[in-house]
Amino acid sequence: MPCSVARALEVVGDGWTLLVVRDLFYGASRFDELLEYTGIARNILTSRLNKLVADGIVEKRDNPAGGKRKIYCLTEKGQDLFTILIALMQWGDRWEADTAGPTLSMLDRLSGDPIPDIFVRNTEGDVVGSGDVLLRPGPGATRAVLKRFAGATRG
Amino acid sequence: MPCSVARALEVVGDGWTLLVVRDLFYGASRFDELLEYTGIARNILTSRLNKLVADGIVEKRDNPAGGKRKIYCLTEKGQDLFTILIALMQWGDRWEADTAGPTLSMLDRLSGDPIPDIFVRNTEGDVVGSGDVLLRPGPGATRAVLKRFAGATRG
Repeated sequence: MPCSVARALEVVGDGWTLLVVRDLFYGASRFDELLEYTGIARNILTSRLNKLVADGIVEKRDNPAGGKRKIYCLTEKGQDLFTILIALMQWGDRWEADTAGPTLSMLDRLSGDPIPDIFVRNTEGDVVGSGDVLLRPGPGATRAVLKRFAGATRG
Repeated sequence: MPCSVARALEVVGDGWTLLVVRDLFYGASRFDELLEYTGIARNILTSRLNKLVADGIVEKRDNPAGGKRKIYCLTEKGQDLFTILIALMQWGDRWEADTAGPTLSMLDRLSGDPIPDIFVRNTEGDVVGSGDVLLRPGPGATRAVLKRFAGATRG
């Protein structure tokens, strides 16, 4: 699929995959930790981890604490999923939280201040929504994309 | 699942679901348009649209052009998925694009300038990564979250 949304979803579009990535961000690294925190069945976790390694999101490393079992760490490409994960968390907090409120608060390590919600912004720093942007064919546009987006008045 | 990432994924974690949302953002609204642009099988598209309506992401409206067939529009909750979608698109552009480059460019409608990549930032506006934040139990924390995150030195 040519569009970058579709390509990103081919890698991380499965819900279990992003749950594994979430727990790697939260500091889990051993298979048994991921098993406990994600609640995924053992065989599914194994296949998701293998796909994450094949896609360059996760790498296996020797456990610095020793032992034969490897640990799982996010690569640079995997670390770069942080924005997507936090956007999902903040949307979930806004629309799907219990009446009690969010289960987790995210604070800046240095200042202790809450991390603000992220939004799409223009170069001036103003928040923009889908009505404020135009989509135009990029350098890698396929014929279908050219047909659909060239000269469109709305993205 | 208590965490907001997990709750968000229960609603939008299926890859097809976000592809439908993508095409609604791109201006599609009729069933046949969504069928063409997403490339999803008719029966799967029907079930995904029904779930999106049930989850409050999409609403059916009368077609202003007339006719019996309804059109599909994003609700406010659905519009609020814009940040997640653009974060996915930008990550895909950075890591999964062809050598030719991204298929689409997103421009500010008023200025014509490209929309900058979005990142998680602190209240000072500095980009923060997973190592720069702390996760603490929020007001809706469950016992498991309290046990896992209270007093943790790293999020």
